[in-house]
Amino acid sequence: MAAARLGEFELIARFFAPLAGPGALGLRDDAALLDVSPDSQLVLTNDTVIAGVHFRADDPPDLVARKALRVNLSDLAAKGARPLGFLQALTLNGSITDAWLESYARGLAEDVSAFHIPLVGGDTTTSTGPLCITITALGETPKDSAILRSGARAGDVVHVSGSIGDSALGLACLMGALNLPPEHAVALADRYHLPRPRMDVGRALRGNATAALDISDGLVADLGHMADASRVGITIERDAVPLSASARAAIAADPALWEKILAGGDDYEIAFAVPAARTAEIARIAHETGVALTPIGRVTAGTGVTVNAGGQPMTLSSTGYRHR
Amino acid sequence: MAAARLGEFELIARFFAPLAGPGALGLRDDAALLDVSPDSQLVLTNDTVIAGVHFRADDPPDLVARKALRVNLSDLAAKGARPLGFLQALTLNGSITDAWLESYARGLAEDVSAFHIPLVGGDTTTSTGPLCITITALGETPKDSAILRSGARAGDVVHVSGSIGDSALGLACLMGALNLPPEHAVALADRYHLPRPRMDVGRALRGNATAALDISDGLVADLGHMADASRVGITIERDAVPLSASARAAIAADPALWEKILAGGDDYEIAFAVPAARTAEIARIAHETGVALTPIGRVTAGTGVTVNAGGQPMTLSSTGYRHR
Repeated sequence: MAAARLGEFELIARFFAPLAGPGALGLRDDAALLDVSPDSQLVLTNDTVIAGVHFRADDPPDLVARKALRVNLSDLAAKGARPLGFLQALTLNGSITDAWLESYARGLAEDVSAFHIPLVGGDTTTSTGPLCITITALGETPKDSAILRSGARAGDVVHVSGSIGDSALGLACLMGALNLPPEHAVALADRYHLPRPRMDVGRALRGNATAALDISDGLVADLGHMADASRVGITIERDAVPLSASARAAIAADPALWEKILAGGDDYEIAFAVPAARTAEIARIAHETGVALTPIGRVTAGTGVTVNAGGQPMTLSSTGYRHR
Repeated sequence: MAAARLGEFELIARFFAPLAGPGALGLRDDAALLDVSPDSQLVLTNDTVIAGVHFRADDPPDLVARKALRVNLSDLAAKGARPLGFLQALTLNGSITDAWLESYARGLAEDVSAFHIPLVGGDTTTSTGPLCITITALGETPKDSAILRSGARAGDVVHVSGSIGDSALGLACLMGALNLPPEHAVALADRYHLPRPRMDVGRALRGNATAALDISDGLVADLGHMADASRVGITIERDAVPLSASARAAIAADPALWEKILAGGDDYEIAFAVPAARTAEIARIAHETGVALTPIGRVTAGTGVTVNAGGQPMTLSSTGYRHR
């Protein structure tokens, strides 16, 4: 890496936000909204994954395919959208074999079927660089019902789906940076390889949540995006953040892993805000979908994200925690 | 390039066509069609361009941006679609500077405005490989009016828009493989750098053309795609193929350049078939749009593409000419 360059957020704000249409939500949301019919909106999202950056070059090809699709499905889920179809731009290189592609296509087929999202188009190219997959997913929501990042209001209760931190811990296990008993290492690595897009939760949140997003950069960073977009502050209680049994075992052995859990990212859970009066509705959705939906904090009148641990604000070392 | 692998068309047919939804047109058309409202269809296309493959790494960044967008617009044009918006997945690398991005964004802004196609979303990533741009463009047509590749019928007259071969000759000039007087070299290089998507022609062809596609692989190869999709043959007269003054000058100096003109690709003109009874309508469209629309041959009951030159079928050396 040579030339000095703006970070991703600054680069988008400076060069590309001026080109954005009204449905682009300032290029700051998980997805764009386009009016295409009198009673529904098209929801569009686009994510690139690159070998060596977003997945490991020797990851099983079927899981690479499923993750590439699921990170896009997760964006649709956070908007409460029903999947319509996807386009796949696949940039191969000389080391990709027919056998690799066969496994990749088998994995993709599995999720095309599981999520009822047909392949509708794409492009296949070859370069000298790393394998690169860009998926553009389309979904739809009833008109004006998509959940944005920008609607959180002071007093709302902040929730997350599922459990947080598993993927980041799983990657650390795969890279040999974290030693855990095999049953935990395997469970966490599975969460890294295979996100669980919360489609049913997202749809049920329409009309209930004031703001939602999928957690990809890290819980605290993404709550920071919600706080910024909504012009509010968010305070969460670290010890309320839901952990899997494997993550709890990791934390018991090394409490310093909290930072990885709160900032590691790749969770693909939904973080959302709901008015305090609607929390009973959230419990009902959790029951109906079978997905844990856990209150972890509150929206405040301030700015930024504060994480309390044991009654004290945590000092977080990584600069990745807050995108202002 | 190491491992043996299927070609692009075989790879798509074998691995990805089985995953395609009904609107994907078997992944063999320029674009996909999706029903999203009672009276219009969404038209979707997706093209990746890579430095060193689809453009030269030292091409002016503003022209790289405009070409990346225009190759997608050309796909919409061939379907007769009105542009709605696009998503941009930009994969940078360490050698891309802020100055490069500024020029790139300026070029993109120019075409966003010229073609009334807002940016609606995207993703920005960094890899160790070459610069890579995937644009997904969305358009719309009135319900069931999009022009497919598959509708050509024996007896139809085959036309092309504009002039053919300029881009391939321009690239040869830029690479030092072809020496022409500067005024011709500059005009041809401009056609390589800046495709002219024929939006107005495409829309006017709705209801008139039985089949259409944009010429990207090469005139003969793409007519082959139309012939295959329509289960017909196509015979064209080489000397009817419309050439610019610069291409005529090149051919006068070296008649062997016909192969580059017929097979070089990157033309981004529209090839289309119309019933013989409608050719007067085509002359009217040419007049109204100011774009030459030239008859170059006929659809036949056979298979494949035949090019006649001086009353004899030409023998074409490149295997790229026919995709069966």
